Amino acid sequence: MKFIDELKFLKEQLKFKEKVSVPSGTDNIVIAGMGGSGIAGKIFREFYSGMPVYLVDDYNIPDFVSKSTMFIAISYSGNTEETVTATREAKAKGAHITTISSGALLHVLGNQRILIPRSDLQPRSATGYMLMPLLRGFGIMPEGSEEGAYALLSVLDKNNAQCLAHAKAIFKDSAIPIVYGSAPFKSIAYRWKTQFNENSKVIGYSNSFPELNHNDTMAIAHTYQREHMYFMVFEPEDSRIRKRIEVTSKITQAKFHLITPKGGTALEKMFYLLHYGDYVTYHLGVLREISPTDVSLIEELKLEIK
Amino acid sequence: MKFIDELKFLKEQLKFKEKVSVPSGTDNIVIAGMGGSGIAGKIFREFYSGMPVYLVDDYNIPDFVSKSTMFIAISYSGNTEETVTATREAKAKGAHITTISSGALLHVLGNQRILIPRSDLQPRSATGYMLMPLLRGFGIMPEGSEEGAYALLSVLDKNNAQCLAHAKAIFKDSAIPIVYGSAPFKSIAYRWKTQFNENSKVIGYSNSFPELNHNDTMAIAHTYQREHMYFMVFEPEDSRIRKRIEVTSKITQAKFHLITPKGGTALEKMFYLLHYGDYVTYHLGVLREISPTDVSLIEELKLEIK
Repeated sequence: MKFIDELKFLKEQLKFKEKVSVPSGTDNIVIAGMGGSGIAGKIFREFYSGMPVYLVDDYNIPDFVSKSTMFIAISYSGNTEETVTATREAKAKGAHITTISSGALLHVLGNQRILIPRSDLQPRSATGYMLMPLLRGFGIMPEGSEEGAYALLSVLDKNNAQCLAHAKAIFKDSAIPIVYGSAPFKSIAYRWKTQFNENSKVIGYSNSFPELNHNDTMAIAHTYQREHMYFMVFEPEDSRIRKRIEVTSKITQAKFHLITPKGGTALEKMFYLLHYGDYVTYHLGVLREISPTDVSLIEELKLEIK
Repeated sequence: MKFIDELKFLKEQLKFKEKVSVPSGTDNIVIAGMGGSGIAGKIFREFYSGMPVYLVDDYNIPDFVSKSTMFIAISYSGNTEETVTATREAKAKGAHITTISSGALLHVLGNQRILIPRSDLQPRSATGYMLMPLLRGFGIMPEGSEEGAYALLSVLDKNNAQCLAHAKAIFKDSAIPIVYGSAPFKSIAYRWKTQFNENSKVIGYSNSFPELNHNDTMAIAHTYQREHMYFMVFEPEDSRIRKRIEVTSKITQAKFHLITPKGGTALEKMFYLLHYGDYVTYHLGVLREISPTDVSLIEELKLEIK
């Protein structure tokens, strides 16, 4: 599948019906996942906090993992070294294991196994497959309620000229993209950063309001290289954050490019922002005449560290 | 106190004897704190995982907060808007509140109140005061065990020529500092980033191994502006991470400046790395002829959003 078709395929993944089920006796949730597979847990955690959700992006698991832990391991390939290692450790400690993967090593470790029906996508293009079982299982996006989001993604698939315009502006200045989110879209700001890395092959940076008012703010005003930075800010849900963005832009005299999500709910806006970033980063890759699907160095690294 | 004297004062804070005590019936911990006050919770969480520790850097608290939550609110000034708001919300839900502050609004909200004995420091220079009550209370650094760390910080206070050398190299290229950590020093990489922001007034960026092998890696190799980036990597604890660093540097052909911590334990190395970053960022600020203590825009922002 061509990369542009992978992007267009995201909306179809919203129809994925599989869902995790929460074992009785669960009192905490640990989600392990790296990179393009880890993002599903990060997004989920912004929409669910009925129990402590602890994210693992490493080989090791926290000490508290026990029989009352629902351990959700996410790896699109099913072979991610860190995630498989962490999951084996969790299994040894008696945690209930739920796997979300397209098979391989991880799949067989699961007490509960969600199998993604195709394994030929880039992991970062399979976010829907990895996220929907979480949103469905915890009642955040029950079956049938995805229609609004589906329609919004379709609109972006047909017309993403605004995304191209951002990409052109970034390209013109060889700018470092800086993406500022806020709840419940902090993880989406991070997602954009990772997509700039992989789709556009540029170093990018993300942070979130209000935390960035305690550190980035002085730097935005006084840093060198500002002419090579392109600041993007998601329109926030909260009026206090809106005020912070206005004031931060004013006192630092920095141009903040506001990204305004469409959608009737925070969840729909999240999907819209997610996909908007897919297109900005894709277009920047194309402008740079770089293959968005080339992740050869990551593959080389996986071989060399074996 | 001059800023350089604030830096030298960190080691004295290691002698701070106050400690939190964990209420009976606690089954999860939530720590609220922003910026220079939030870093204490982030560091603590890398050294303690006997229970789920959930970090809040925003106005709102997670749904699971209840009577069995130990809610630790950290604000050096005691007036941080987000932290005070979140703490009031937690109190309303019946959580047990522990405050760590130099007084003000936050202090009076505590069921358990740790009072920092001086309020005249920059919050980011009071990390010892905010961190030690956590490390002591959870048995990670019992009273008397701080001597090794004290000696290491003293050495840095007397001789930080290596830190100056990094600062000069960054300054020469007007480079964006990029700091890569790994467990249990991920939070220290983030700390460096925030210190570059506030002490040096430059935009910086941090990430951690192994996560960055799933996104930054392609970008390190192919990004534009690489001549204006200065990559620093902490020498890791884990041999798998050591291998990843070697291979990542090789395949991306990027110069990684290795920062090697001194110390006999991971905790001592953490303090050493923390303080090493204080000096790199301080020197860069001096080279830029910028006042490291000037956080006037952050103060202006606090007034304007009221």
